[in-house]
Amino acid sequence: MALVFLPALARMAVCGGTHGNELSGVYVVQEMERQRKEKGEGVLEISSQTICGLYIYFLNNSSLARKLCSPITDSSPYEVRRAQELNNLLGLKGSTDAIDLICDLHNTTSNMGLTLIHYTSSDWVTLHICKYLQTKITKVPVRVLVLDVPISDAYSLESVSKHGFSLEVGPQPHGVVRADIYIIMKEAVDLTIDWIHKFNSGTVFEGGDVEAFKFIKSVDYPRDPETRTLTAAIHPQLQDKDFCLLKRGDPLFLSFSGETVNYEEEETLHPFFINEAAYYEKGIAFHLGKKMMLTIPTVRVQKD
Amino acid sequence: MALVFLPALARMAVCGGTHGNELSGVYVVQEMERQRKEKGEGVLEISSQTICGLYIYFLNNSSLARKLCSPITDSSPYEVRRAQELNNLLGLKGSTDAIDLICDLHNTTSNMGLTLIHYTSSDWVTLHICKYLQTKITKVPVRVLVLDVPISDAYSLESVSKHGFSLEVGPQPHGVVRADIYIIMKEAVDLTIDWIHKFNSGTVFEGGDVEAFKFIKSVDYPRDPETRTLTAAIHPQLQDKDFCLLKRGDPLFLSFSGETVNYEEEETLHPFFINEAAYYEKGIAFHLGKKMMLTIPTVRVQKD
Repeated sequence: MALVFLPALARMAVCGGTHGNELSGVYVVQEMERQRKEKGEGVLEISSQTICGLYIYFLNNSSLARKLCSPITDSSPYEVRRAQELNNLLGLKGSTDAIDLICDLHNTTSNMGLTLIHYTSSDWVTLHICKYLQTKITKVPVRVLVLDVPISDAYSLESVSKHGFSLEVGPQPHGVVRADIYIIMKEAVDLTIDWIHKFNSGTVFEGGDVEAFKFIKSVDYPRDPETRTLTAAIHPQLQDKDFCLLKRGDPLFLSFSGETVNYEEEETLHPFFINEAAYYEKGIAFHLGKKMMLTIPTVRVQKD
Repeated sequence: MALVFLPALARMAVCGGTHGNELSGVYVVQEMERQRKEKGEGVLEISSQTICGLYIYFLNNSSLARKLCSPITDSSPYEVRRAQELNNLLGLKGSTDAIDLICDLHNTTSNMGLTLIHYTSSDWVTLHICKYLQTKITKVPVRVLVLDVPISDAYSLESVSKHGFSLEVGPQPHGVVRADIYIIMKEAVDLTIDWIHKFNSGTVFEGGDVEAFKFIKSVDYPRDPETRTLTAAIHPQLQDKDFCLLKRGDPLFLSFSGETVNYEEEETLHPFFINEAAYYEKGIAFHLGKKMMLTIPTVRVQKD
């Protein structure tokens, strides 16, 4: 298998609170900042509000960090200034100034375990990090989810960086922090940083196969045709079964009057984001995905 | 044991959506209304917004129901008009016009099973309904919680009626409806109506002991003394253990840096509402209560 040489990763951002009521990331970022103050590592915290906590982990370039944090004088509205701040901080989308890797921390009410979401199936750095997490984390299932859209269309935070992924951990109610979920997220972030340090130090990471799920389509709740209100909930046999194999005849919904709605399609697919609170208003009861195997090459850092 | 004769219960209100993101009650009320339309029972639905769904179950007085629903012409702000509407609907607090029983439907992110909350330990009607639910519902624990405050101080919806309780079911994230939680709530409401019909028809309900928990005090999360931000989450060994027995030395919190905070008091108490999302801003990590036994008399409806 081919050996691919890739540039070292100088700057990484760990972002918590992109969705402010998803609390694990907020406290992971808070704890990283506390550790930085205690240990005095070459790491910089950027206070924020839209993103409740944004934590830039400068791997070897703290002077650049200071430059990026120069004051903003623009008198435009808060959201615009905030977007500019973040763009400056993270580097312009698609440019060579872009930050090397963003790890954007999220929670879900779905029983997703640890799910690593990214927007391309050909980013070897991100996929190697996924493979590393799948090997090292054994307490919960670690799954890779590929939303294969053009990077210019991707609207999520990590799409502004050269590499990156969203880290979804659940189930956790929004507005709540559970210690078990916090611990999983913290371990995943620590292992990601661990991988980068090893990669930058010249460790060779062997290629191979990575199991992933590819988004196919979304399914909405049964609704009243006039009022659009829900007439059914996720069926108890499907609830909390994210990434199971869904076959024709399997129950999907249980109506409030007790009738079961089954899966009627021929294609066997894997449901995920089942009963996510934030997706009710988007008309999504769950997504369906297809399992696939990605083959990634052996990678090593480029020598200067 | 003494036999107590009590007046028949003519009007009952089942209220969903008092907290709009606690969805089980919203859909229980929606389903009751659907059933009414289908079966044409003597039951009236009142559309609402502050209370997303309010469902008045008129047991034997539908003419009164129509009178209460006459249009409101007041030009005062929405909240005031809405409060007047509800007051008219439910009857004036403390007056003889008050509705006989309110069952106010709530969800919690805590693992509380089915918990029946009321504000006095001497309301025989409500306690008999609790005893009935404890006997009939076996799938989840059914617990009775007494917040023994003067009824004039009680600010919850059911305190406006002659009898009543809050029905809390969890764990369920706010903004989500889970079929399993919906089914428990619907069964509890159906059994409450069942009890009232039996009581009104002359069934004698034997007295006896009812196990209950009495609120003692609240405990807050460990917080940073300056920023007031949380420095710890509920300990994994306490999470989801609502109504367990808490002894000196048992773990309460796990700090984000990994230290355990233990329970240090001598008195053994029972924690509940552990890690409820809505209580973070109130400074409540959990409540502590004491188990007690209430003795209730045998009751029967008064003959006209």
